[in-house]
Amino acid sequence: MIKTTSSSLIETLRTRRQRLASLIDFPAILWSGSSNPRNFPANVFPFRANSHFLYFAGLPLPNAAIRLTAGKLELFMDDPQPESALWHGGMPHREEIAQIIGAEAAKPMAELELWIEDAATIAVQDAATWTQQSQLLNRWVLPQKPPQDIDLELAKAIISLRLIHDDGALAELRKAAAVTVEAHKAGMAATSRAQIEAQVRAAMEQVLIANNMTTSYNSIVTVHGEVLHNEQYHHPLQPGDLLLADVGAETEMGWAADVTRTWCVNGKFSSTQREIYDVVLAAHDACIAKIYPGVEYQDLHLLACTVIAEGLVNLGILQGNPQDLVEMDAHTLFFPHGIGHLLGLDVHDMEDLGDLAGYEEERTRSNRFGLGYLRLNRPLRPGMLVTIEPGFYQVPAILNNANLRSKYQNVVNWERLSEFADVRGVRIEDDVLVTQEGSEVLTAALPTQASLIENLVCG
Amino acid sequence: MIKTTSSSLIETLRTRRQRLASLIDFPAILWSGSSNPRNFPANVFPFRANSHFLYFAGLPLPNAAIRLTAGKLELFMDDPQPESALWHGGMPHREEIAQIIGAEAAKPMAELELWIEDAATIAVQDAATWTQQSQLLNRWVLPQKPPQDIDLELAKAIISLRLIHDDGALAELRKAAAVTVEAHKAGMAATSRAQIEAQVRAAMEQVLIANNMTTSYNSIVTVHGEVLHNEQYHHPLQPGDLLLADVGAETEMGWAADVTRTWCVNGKFSSTQREIYDVVLAAHDACIAKIYPGVEYQDLHLLACTVIAEGLVNLGILQGNPQDLVEMDAHTLFFPHGIGHLLGLDVHDMEDLGDLAGYEEERTRSNRFGLGYLRLNRPLRPGMLVTIEPGFYQVPAILNNANLRSKYQNVVNWERLSEFADVRGVRIEDDVLVTQEGSEVLTAALPTQASLIENLVCG
Repeated sequence: MIKTTSSSLIETLRTRRQRLASLIDFPAILWSGSSNPRNFPANVFPFRANSHFLYFAGLPLPNAAIRLTAGKLELFMDDPQPESALWHGGMPHREEIAQIIGAEAAKPMAELELWIEDAATIAVQDAATWTQQSQLLNRWVLPQKPPQDIDLELAKAIISLRLIHDDGALAELRKAAAVTVEAHKAGMAATSRAQIEAQVRAAMEQVLIANNMTTSYNSIVTVHGEVLHNEQYHHPLQPGDLLLADVGAETEMGWAADVTRTWCVNGKFSSTQREIYDVVLAAHDACIAKIYPGVEYQDLHLLACTVIAEGLVNLGILQGNPQDLVEMDAHTLFFPHGIGHLLGLDVHDMEDLGDLAGYEEERTRSNRFGLGYLRLNRPLRPGMLVTIEPGFYQVPAILNNANLRSKYQNVVNWERLSEFADVRGVRIEDDVLVTQEGSEVLTAALPTQASLIENLVCG
Repeated sequence: MIKTTSSSLIETLRTRRQRLASLIDFPAILWSGSSNPRNFPANVFPFRANSHFLYFAGLPLPNAAIRLTAGKLELFMDDPQPESALWHGGMPHREEIAQIIGAEAAKPMAELELWIEDAATIAVQDAATWTQQSQLLNRWVLPQKPPQDIDLELAKAIISLRLIHDDGALAELRKAAAVTVEAHKAGMAATSRAQIEAQVRAAMEQVLIANNMTTSYNSIVTVHGEVLHNEQYHHPLQPGDLLLADVGAETEMGWAADVTRTWCVNGKFSSTQREIYDVVLAAHDACIAKIYPGVEYQDLHLLACTVIAEGLVNLGILQGNPQDLVEMDAHTLFFPHGIGHLLGLDVHDMEDLGDLAGYEEERTRSNRFGLGYLRLNRPLRPGMLVTIEPGFYQVPAILNNANLRSKYQNVVNWERLSEFADVRGVRIEDDVLVTQEGSEVLTAALPTQASLIENLVCG
């Protein structure tokens, strides 16, 4: 994990905390968190450090905390017990780690209680840590409780930094994107030899593991793309099935990618699959073409909805004027989720803070059928990284819903729709950086065009 | 996950709870547990059900509980919310699951509080669940607190069942063992093309994922075998390095395997590597040959110690009589851990209960240098599954310890030892079932002999 002192890491971290110091005038203490036991205390899930800690500390150090004040960094962690050298090897000591990350001081964890006065924090997800946070700060610090007072001020300050990725972040995000592209290519190439979904998933995750990365979320690799968060992998690949793979890498330092491609297990899309695929791709391309500083992300969402509605009208599945169809949320029958979200240290970046990061101040979630699942509603700014992920799904829970069927009976041609039975779910998702000039697709090395996807699957 | 109603699953579960009913005369309520958030609430680690729940409920159902009383099974879980069908698909309802597992009744979770009187339980690892257990039962139910009163009685009753694997368990354990064997073969075959440890790990875990299994513990795949629980994978494979791989599968229903092999990244062991390897293998084979009902597991441990001491005397590394060396714990300098542990639903089976399962009643851990890490101290009985995993390590924290060096200065030939510098860590581990006739090695399809290992690595 820790190889050498990197001056660029030290510089990156110093700049981040100086920027934080310009936004708040009280100390911040960020905890890294502890491992979660799996089935007994010694058998834990792989440690995943808290993202706010990672942003300022740079390294995934378990059971540590940092105190940030006026641009200074103090590291609190205990040195490994002598016994731990037997089981875990000679780990670097506190002082060595402090040097690697450019900390001004390094202290044992027990001293943290002397430095908590007036300090703000952000709740960590694991119970051992938020209990410790609550006890030391003498107030409830709970992951499910929205931050208050100085904790809220701290959260907003950190959000304003993490929204705009610096060069250190971008270097990691590009690494995650590049490995994710290779994983998808490996999944496509493995499909012709695979009998079940799990074998394609294995070919994809192998690439992540071989690059010493992990998944940034539980992979979706499914012939039932209509189940949006499908985490089952046992289904056989039947001739003519579409396979939807939503798989992303996370680097050792915690930075994420999030990519979806959809292909046919036969290699070649059927004509109906190709027609729907091209509608989704048109929405994907239209959104990316419009990305530019100042553009409202919600407008991209609505653009995708319109392009999808238009495409479905052209195919005879929807009837009416595309704009009107979007206003009545008819597209939502087939595209029920948002066009995407922030991406960074978290795959839904900073979603531990609810909608604080995703939604511009004063904005809240809509309760409109077509907007309620939108996770990001802000004007775009250079340095933001977002996903663009339009889709088309035939979700039984939606299409068989009597209320929805009756509400939209005049705009859906159900008979025509039945001809597209071999298209249960399609999604195309890329990771797009907002730049001064417009945008840069970090995952552009993975084709999106149907014919190019077919070539990758057929080999 | 859930395919069809299996009469053998229903029968297996019925027999287990009837056996439990013959041991306790109060109700038992077992919770399955919840997913642990990773970096934000919607991004969770893969769900892992509590093992005691799995033993009696058969299926890894999140956020569920079962009540066992007088041989009857009642299932408590909530039906999926209508909205969940969009994200997670049409999940089976409570009544369907009750049918699959042969439950006599199925009730919503909210009704559990009506059925808690006089019920015993076992703490689940995740905080959300042990909080719920504590609140409902109105007493502290904590994973780190040894069970008391009826909870202790329940724990002992479950241990007496889970110690002896039934046919349903063995079918799953054999599946885990078979896939683990394939994973190790894949790791050996991938070594010649690999530049870093992570690439070998990837080839091994790919096999688990492709079989819709997971790892039963975080894999160890390392050229630094002297670090016993090494979870780093970035080291390059250098010519002449030994690679130690401790990787095991866990089936969908939670049953584990745990296997270690050590090979040379060149394919062929050096003469010093081969000499030490054969000492470890001799200890491995000697222990397995002695496994028989009634044999004390601690005697197997001491046998392994003696064989290793003898081998090291023959190589000129230790000096003296092997028995005497073991009595003074001199072997522990090179073999500091125990010969193995119980294996079942947990890789250290039932270690959530501390030493209650591993240690026969009235026995406690020794504080002897050579016995303190022994996790199992019971007479063997047919149906027990144990690991046999002798090793040899040059652990700097031990060999550079001034006290230990002075204590053992007369029995170690340090100069001779220095000739074995290319042997940092060797372990050979198999999963061995105790049978009426002696033993059956469930992982026997994976060779242990040095020349056969070399063939698998060289291809």
